[in-house]
Amino acid sequence: MSIDTAPRPEDDHRPSNPGWLNEEELRFVRGRLPMLYVEAVPVRINGLGQVTEVGLLLRSTPDGVMNRTLVSGRVRYGEPVREALARHLENDLGPMAFPQMPTALVPMQVAEYFPMPGISQYVDDRQHAVSLVYVVPVTGTCNPRQDALEVTWMTPEKALSDETARELSGGRGTLLRQALAAAGC
Amino acid sequence: MSIDTAPRPEDDHRPSNPGWLNEEELRFVRGRLPMLYVEAVPVRINGLGQVTEVGLLLRSTPDGVMNRTLVSGRVRYGEPVREALARHLENDLGPMAFPQMPTALVPMQVAEYFPMPGISQYVDDRQHAVSLVYVVPVTGTCNPRQDALEVTWMTPEKALSDETARELSGGRGTLLRQALAAAGC
Amino acid sequence: MSIDTAPRPEDDHRPSNPGWLNEEELRFVRGRLPMLYVEAVPVRINGLGQVTEVGLLLRSTPDGVMNRTLVSGRVRYGEPVREALARHLENDLGPMAFPQMPTALVPMQVAEYFPMPGISQYVDDRQHAVSLVYVVPVTGTCNPRQDALEVTWMTPEKALSDETARELSGGRGTLLRQALAAAGC
Amino acid sequence: MSIDTAPRPEDDHRPSNPGWLNEEELRFVRGRLPMLYVEAVPVRINGLGQVTEVGLLLRSTPDGVMNRTLVSGRVRYGEPVREALARHLENDLGPMAFPQMPTALVPMQVAEYFPMPGISQYVDDRQHAVSLVYVVPVTGTCNPRQDALEVTWMTPEKALSDETARELSGGRGTLLRQALAAAGC
Repeated sequence: MSIDTAPRPEDDHRPSNPGWLNEEELRFVRGRLPMLYVEAVPVRINGLGQVTEVGLLLRSTPDGVMNRTLVSGRVRYGEPVREALARHLENDLGPMAFPQMPTALVPMQVAEYFPMPGISQYVDDRQHAVSLVYVVPVTGTCNPRQDALEVTWMTPEKALSDETARELSGGRGTLLRQALAAAGC
Repeated sequence: MSIDTAPRPEDDHRPSNPGWLNEEELRFVRGRLPMLYVEAVPVRINGLGQVTEVGLLLRSTPDGVMNRTLVSGRVRYGEPVREALARHLENDLGPMAFPQMPTALVPMQVAEYFPMPGISQYVDDRQHAVSLVYVVPVTGTCNPRQDALEVTWMTPEKALSDETARELSGGRGTLLRQALAAAGC
Repeated sequence: MSIDTAPRPEDDHRPSNPGWLNEEELRFVRGRLPMLYVEAVPVRINGLGQVTEVGLLLRSTPDGVMNRTLVSGRVRYGEPVREALARHLENDLGPMAFPQMPTALVPMQVAEYFPMPGISQYVDDRQHAVSLVYVVPVTGTCNPRQDALEVTWMTPEKALSDETARELSGGRGTLLRQALAAAGC
Repeated sequence: MSIDTAPRPEDDHRPSNPGWLNEEELRFVRGRLPMLYVEAVPVRINGLGQVTEVGLLLRSTPDGVMNRTLVSGRVRYGEPVREALARHLENDLGPMAFPQMPTALVPMQVAEYFPMPGISQYVDDRQHAVSLVYVVPVTGTCNPRQDALEVTWMTPEKALSDETARELSGGRGTLLRQALAAAGC
């Protein structure tokens, strides 16, 4: 969830996987290379494909602050972008979300996060990350796993309000607006 | 199916609907205005969203020639593009096709058909038509109605072969290639 | 300029052109068919392609009200979409605007205007129009012709403000936001 | 040019730049992370934006084999995607090419290169690379620098021929077809 590249103990502690990075290695590469990410805006659609609801993850940061974010995570070495997207959708929404995976790899938006302010609209103080952002309809039940507390469903209007933008981390209010614009919201 | 703008007796004989056009009116507007169309390439996708099969309609023309075409039809007065797309998908694939409607109105490709040759790659000898083309995953069973004989499912490679291009009417071999390119085929 | 489909006397009074419609014919087709339009958001870009300024047309309506709008106009019978776009850019911005025409026909956004409220976000009380919307960098000098008073250049932030949205006709504040979102604003 | 991530002595030998990687570091990260690339298809367009010619780089590989490729290169740590694209266009086409930079960051296509065969259509035996691919009109004179011998301009038909596809390295015949499809070729 969110821009959290830390390897996850439960499914990543595989030293034989060259894509697995220990803490020191992760710190090294984060300071040397842009990290490739995928992000997804989960949506509910009606029978004509129109977005009726937008799902945002609610979580508590290590400092105890509540904020909202998108489905998000790193693409690993050797992992196709589609598999990374499916893996993070399952990690963040649970195995019963039944996402409709995009037929095109071309994303709705490309977001650039920098640790230094002023380069782009998006900030990630741990790294330089470039994220391929998709709008993904989900048809099943979402049960957030890991550090997310819940998936909050709201109307597109509410999702695009200034109030929601303030709750989104790292400048993602703008990103959400751009991604939903492509879907006609 | 195909670029057939003739009103369909079974569901269109509603003189109270201003979008209904009789033969004379249709002939008049076809010579005065570009006609707005939607077209769809039905596809089967796997769990990661990759196209595994492409569905082409097989039909017999009035002259008894067999050819292939896409889901296609006119947008009527007062009809949203999404509703026109859903209507033609149901008309051409039957009510059990269960298409995944696109979340974005922006199409995969825009095709321009002219009655006069040499203006574009696409020809329609009845009219000037501009078509919004979508790639639409279908998850159910397709039972073509109206004048189509069947939906033939084939691999993307077969769909993109020169042999198939020759069977597609109106230059749609190129259009199919362009639409599938956006889906990574 | 704007959704003005009336034939323009100075360059359209060609009864031999089948795409030319007199007032009565125009009224007839406007009540029977969706009209195909192109719209353009003129922008200034920097050396990296980023939008630095957005150009909006200021005009006085027949009732003497001032409002803002986009470059916009009808696609005629037999006219390729690219030629319609180039023609309306020249009509609305003058011959020295030097627009960078898009390489792809696929637009940034598709907008649907209906005369009846509540079907979409966009309203045009004269007709049902479907518009292909492009963001077009211009490198030259803009001298609005016809009924526009001026082209006002403003920052993307100003263009996206609530104040500007209120000045835009027919719901185009939302459309401008969607089109600029695709350009990363 | 091509997928060559080796730092370039003339402009990259800046040990103070954290994005600079020595040979050993580059080998390490190439085995641990997907590398982010940009690629560009240089094109000539006419006044309406239609592609009239496609530019392909001709180069001699270290083994003395001639092949063709696209403008291509790595995105560095801290470098915005637009700057990486502009830098590689200048590196590969020279300072007088005058490219029209895209207004949208969303690419025409996303290509995934893997060192192991069978995962995608694209192969790079040195690394896992994910590439954002743009079609970029150039208006000036191209003078390839570095290891490219020349830029060969050809019609879109020639660029899409089987003969040209065989000359393109790493599966880029398919990629070229997909990128040009978005531009209507």
